[in-house]
Amino acid sequence: MKNQLLLFLCCFLWAQIKLIAQKNDKADEDAFFIRDIYNTALTKGQSYPWLEYLCTKIGHRLSGSAQSLAAVEYTRQMLDTLGLDSVWLQPCMVPHWSRGDKEIVRISQSAMGSIDLHALALGNSIGTGPEGLSAEVIEVKRLDELETLGRDKIAGKIVFFNRPLDPTQLNAFAAYGGAVDQRGLGASRASKMGAVAVLVRSMTTRLDNDPHTGSTTYEPGVTPIPALGISTNDAETLSRLLRQDQVRVYIRNTSRMLGMKQSYNVIGEIKGSEKPREIILVGGHLDSWDVGQGAHDDGAGCVHAMDVLQVMKRMKYRPKRTIRCVLFMNEENGLMGGKTYAEISNQQHEFHLAAIESDRGGFTPRGFTCESEDKSFDQKFKRILAWTDLLGPYGLHLKRGGSGADISPLRGQKGVLFGFEPDSQRYFDYHHTAIDNFDAVNKRELELGVASMAALVYLLDKYGL
Amino acid sequence: MKNQLLLFLCCFLWAQIKLIAQKNDKADEDAFFIRDIYNTALTKGQSYPWLEYLCTKIGHRLSGSAQSLAAVEYTRQMLDTLGLDSVWLQPCMVPHWSRGDKEIVRISQSAMGSIDLHALALGNSIGTGPEGLSAEVIEVKRLDELETLGRDKIAGKIVFFNRPLDPTQLNAFAAYGGAVDQRGLGASRASKMGAVAVLVRSMTTRLDNDPHTGSTTYEPGVTPIPALGISTNDAETLSRLLRQDQVRVYIRNTSRMLGMKQSYNVIGEIKGSEKPREIILVGGHLDSWDVGQGAHDDGAGCVHAMDVLQVMKRMKYRPKRTIRCVLFMNEENGLMGGKTYAEISNQQHEFHLAAIESDRGGFTPRGFTCESEDKSFDQKFKRILAWTDLLGPYGLHLKRGGSGADISPLRGQKGVLFGFEPDSQRYFDYHHTAIDNFDAVNKRELELGVASMAALVYLLDKYGL
Repeated sequence: MKNQLLLFLCCFLWAQIKLIAQKNDKADEDAFFIRDIYNTALTKGQSYPWLEYLCTKIGHRLSGSAQSLAAVEYTRQMLDTLGLDSVWLQPCMVPHWSRGDKEIVRISQSAMGSIDLHALALGNSIGTGPEGLSAEVIEVKRLDELETLGRDKIAGKIVFFNRPLDPTQLNAFAAYGGAVDQRGLGASRASKMGAVAVLVRSMTTRLDNDPHTGSTTYEPGVTPIPALGISTNDAETLSRLLRQDQVRVYIRNTSRMLGMKQSYNVIGEIKGSEKPREIILVGGHLDSWDVGQGAHDDGAGCVHAMDVLQVMKRMKYRPKRTIRCVLFMNEENGLMGGKTYAEISNQQHEFHLAAIESDRGGFTPRGFTCESEDKSFDQKFKRILAWTDLLGPYGLHLKRGGSGADISPLRGQKGVLFGFEPDSQRYFDYHHTAIDNFDAVNKRELELGVASMAALVYLLDKYGL
Repeated sequence: MKNQLLLFLCCFLWAQIKLIAQKNDKADEDAFFIRDIYNTALTKGQSYPWLEYLCTKIGHRLSGSAQSLAAVEYTRQMLDTLGLDSVWLQPCMVPHWSRGDKEIVRISQSAMGSIDLHALALGNSIGTGPEGLSAEVIEVKRLDELETLGRDKIAGKIVFFNRPLDPTQLNAFAAYGGAVDQRGLGASRASKMGAVAVLVRSMTTRLDNDPHTGSTTYEPGVTPIPALGISTNDAETLSRLLRQDQVRVYIRNTSRMLGMKQSYNVIGEIKGSEKPREIILVGGHLDSWDVGQGAHDDGAGCVHAMDVLQVMKRMKYRPKRTIRCVLFMNEENGLMGGKTYAEISNQQHEFHLAAIESDRGGFTPRGFTCESEDKSFDQKFKRILAWTDLLGPYGLHLKRGGSGADISPLRGQKGVLFGFEPDSQRYFDYHHTAIDNFDAVNKRELELGVASMAALVYLLDKYGL
């Protein structure tokens, strides 16, 4: 009896030791593989030359523009070189907005004489008509001030939204989130009170002369009025002049919506060897605004996603699950690519186990945020958190939080949606401006983004969720 | 008896609860104060305008140059505006090296005709004489290859050190550390084998046309020979040509050491109210190389240190211990400022409880590394690690590791030496080049560095070590 017990104990201990050893082996194997991913991305990456081509040979890529279609063709060709299992274009209809002539925003009656402000029409804005318009300016800091001021004070005027981004926010996206209602809804809300146009302080903490564009929305039933962004330096000037006296501003822009155009999402995938119906998506958006080169927003995200597949193919990695790269069209002013993609995916009863979007720039990686509508997400998130041991040494955290606009229509599939999170400090220096150019992207920072995303894809593929 | 026991138990529990509550209050108080430090640095910081002046109005600041003295005077004046308890200049003698005429490095006998390479004499290098020199080039990757090749193959030649920085190192300083022996010792070792000059591949993973300077050392007894850095693109070209054929290169530089000059460390301090003899030092180095503006190396570190004091004064913080800002002279080619400072400090029987150096650029903070010769450093480091709860939310780690060159002569005082550690990816794009300019520094990243250092100073001051 005693001997039997001893034997049993020995067997039990042996099993435990084996289990621990196996676990350690697995962890070691994962650590080695992730190190290999980093080495490959940092020495054999394609993201940087791809981004250079996209930015300097094609340039900005507004939905519906000729360049956006050139970008579709170029990225399809590059994916075609990787030996993937399939590469295809997914048609989608997108709005084509046109900026028109160079905008004029001119302070016409100041003691300093006439001052031209650095301005960009906001995306989707209507124009003033060829003769422009001139009106007195009234400054507000918040949307709800419009109600307080009342129609009497606002009707016939240009409303100037001038609430700066909060510089004490450590994450620049939090500062952006706290100010962007002015750009998105300012025109609608001011129009309801009879305003004739709006000017919006640019969405950056930086004081400079680079106006930021970005989408504005006309709410249903609202009379559209012209909406333009002005640079932060000019916002300071205009505000100073308004503290001294009444200010009239002349605005001219000829922006207009040209209607819907045919465009495409660009897709490439490696078919899963064991669970091909479980999809792990990596993506960014191929369209950009029509100024600068859309380097950080979101050329970086596109080449991140493409290079994840390149790195995996180069490493001869055979995924269990299907790994799919999607370059979405029309994130900036309509999200038609993301919506179309999810619609078709749902029709085909696909399941996205996970989707990772990179749309926060090509800066040094800090981690991933994730979200899900799955009821068992709490448990899943615990399993995700356990990967911190493997990703932490690369400076990556795993947190709950938003993911990305393009993949958000996939929420209903109840997979886990990840947002790649690079360092945020410089993003809003460039976002939606004429200086979001290739030269603002650092090669190593970009490549580290590829490696981070590929490492997460590897873990998702190997262990599921 | 039972009642007594109960009473005792109640008293004991009450004391425990109070202890925990006090601890929580303290932690809350610290968290609030650190948040205040960040808010102040991000809204009332002076580092960015100070750096702009230093870079764009004064420019590069090689030890012994007129600009280096202008920088001494400017930073002294700025410290004088802060209402510190004392501001003074500490004299030190520094070597004054002169680059001389624009360097020529010309491949003279290639099939492609003559090619001028982008080159900079390495700091401390001697010149070729006004007529220059011409010799065959031999490429090596490692210092010890010189021994293997032997004097026969090397004598009379120009040795070309061409080992690139390892791109798979995640920390760019580790990659630099693995390659910089070529720049520091290449000339000495090649001279011992009879070489007439050396060319050194620039210390960056980036492929570009910006040559990097940086200090080279002639070991005692060695015949000095000219030493020049060439850009990474040119290193690739030269290496390619050498694989095809013999290559002769013509080099001309007129660099020379001008001798010792009088210069200064710039110092300002807030006297401690309780333990004035325990000093907490924050510092950077005021000198730079003689190209570019020394923005990241190390204008950023200087304004970091100065702004820590500005922030503390603005917050009306009264430190228990003495908080001292030191802007060291001559880190780049002699360390005379750091050596002089430590010598005088030792003579005066001072004790630096802690010293924090910022000399890794003005990028987004990632944390601090620290080291000490104190025997009880293990225990001290445990206490330091406990601050991770307070600094972690700001993305700051606390690790063992090197601190900084200027404060290294303070090792003997057995305080704890900290190195501020910002993100390293971009540093070697700029380090020791003509593009290390103010425009390469992001305001928020710089200000976050000030806040990080001030937060650590606060904890050091409040709790000691």
